[in-house]
Amino acid sequence: MQQFILTCEKKDQRLNRKIGIFFNAWLMERLPAQLVDMFHQGNENPFSLYVEVGRERVSFVVNVIDDSLASAFRDILFTPTMTSLKFKQLKDIVFKVAERSERHLSQTTLSRIFYQDEANGRFNIQVITPTAFKSQGRYQYLPDLRLFFQSLMRQYNHWFEGQDHIDVELLDEICKRTQIAGYRLHTERYEIHNAFLMGFCGNLVVQCRGTQTLKNYVQMLLIFAEFSGVGAKTSLGMGGIRLRERDEKQSGKKKD
Amino acid sequence: MQQFILTCEKKDQRLNRKIGIFFNAWLMERLPAQLVDMFHQGNENPFSLYVEVGRERVSFVVNVIDDSLASAFRDILFTPTMTSLKFKQLKDIVFKVAERSERHLSQTTLSRIFYQDEANGRFNIQVITPTAFKSQGRYQYLPDLRLFFQSLMRQYNHWFEGQDHIDVELLDEICKRTQIAGYRLHTERYEIHNAFLMGFCGNLVVQCRGTQTLKNYVQMLLIFAEFSGVGAKTSLGMGGIRLRERDEKQSGKKKD
Repeated sequence: MQQFILTCEKKDQRLNRKIGIFFNAWLMERLPAQLVDMFHQGNENPFSLYVEVGRERVSFVVNVIDDSLASAFRDILFTPTMTSLKFKQLKDIVFKVAERSERHLSQTTLSRIFYQDEANGRFNIQVITPTAFKSQGRYQYLPDLRLFFQSLMRQYNHWFEGQDHIDVELLDEICKRTQIAGYRLHTERYEIHNAFLMGFCGNLVVQCRGTQTLKNYVQMLLIFAEFSGVGAKTSLGMGGIRLRERDEKQSGKKKD
Repeated sequence: MQQFILTCEKKDQRLNRKIGIFFNAWLMERLPAQLVDMFHQGNENPFSLYVEVGRERVSFVVNVIDDSLASAFRDILFTPTMTSLKFKQLKDIVFKVAERSERHLSQTTLSRIFYQDEANGRFNIQVITPTAFKSQGRYQYLPDLRLFFQSLMRQYNHWFEGQDHIDVELLDEICKRTQIAGYRLHTERYEIHNAFLMGFCGNLVVQCRGTQTLKNYVQMLLIFAEFSGVGAKTSLGMGGIRLRERDEKQSGKKKD
């Protein structure tokens, strides 16, 4: 799995919330047509994206789960001649690329996290773009842990186990041993063409009190989630998440 | 039902979150002992309270559902000699009473709201103090509409219909026709003696798409909720709510 990040300076404009949709369209126009056709045929999209709008910077993030597709995305996003992003729908705004970076996550790394890590079971999840789950024909935008982990297990199993069903007993076990320990969340409308979906953004703390194996599995799913997105419409900019505590640990700012 | 509001100036101190607990203790010490005994014996508390901490003011709010008890509370809260609130546990802080006000809500008014009003079905609920629901032996702190309306129907039926069961079909109908249309909520720990409960605070928009009768019923329950509190530990300061849109309508600032 590969994550491409284009960081741009943010001018003082108030940015349109549809920017993830525009970025998706921009990307689809530049990818080889046969690849785009393939995306439309499959049930699970092998890529996801989101746009993170900060105070001073805007980050365009593209996640490619299938490594064999990564080069097609890199050719577009990392080509030196592409120095700015401009969308048809935002005529007056040019996003000048200030920085490019990429992250790689292999299945081997995920296995190592599962088998060797000692997850403490407390996970601070930053929900960057609106997140929603399709359940029983309706979209849900409460932080329902069953729908949350079900979405991740489905994607993980699809891409890495080659199967479209999940271990329901394992999901039950996660739901039984894991709970929301706190949150600061708000809903946002996410406009997709002429319709809109509601989703939630903000922070979510999840606590797992199961065995070390279960904690490690939950941690592995959450690290995978940074590259897969969670829930509905992840290729259109929804469901972008980041594990916070892990970032803090990695940069030496561990709390507690 | 009677609501007593003591508004005090807020000095620049950061206020302890336990202030609702302290206020409850203060009140219990001053109420007639036989009344306090009665509270401990009943299943449903005939009063609730909460402390709303604003930027410049702190409001101490006491709701008394049973009108026959109101005078005992008025004798304490509205006696002219009681010019300030001081709690044992907050030794250096004196809350000088700047303003006293009261609101009354009769069953007749509630009936009129139910039979004659034309509720539009969209309700903007301000959750002032941490709110949680006891369900299947555990406390829940997500805005679950079933638990929310179940709590209100239980209290309404207990006090006004003299029965401790609720019409489950009606609750089902509310759940079927009503959904959360948006929220901005965060969890807060609410310390009760040496334990704590988690609850949610913030804003919650609820949309009812049922018949006019159902919309009116939901509105009636929510207006009742301002006087009853919602969920667990309302007599200790949790579950204080306010209907926002209605306030705005009443003060002529109606929004759509």
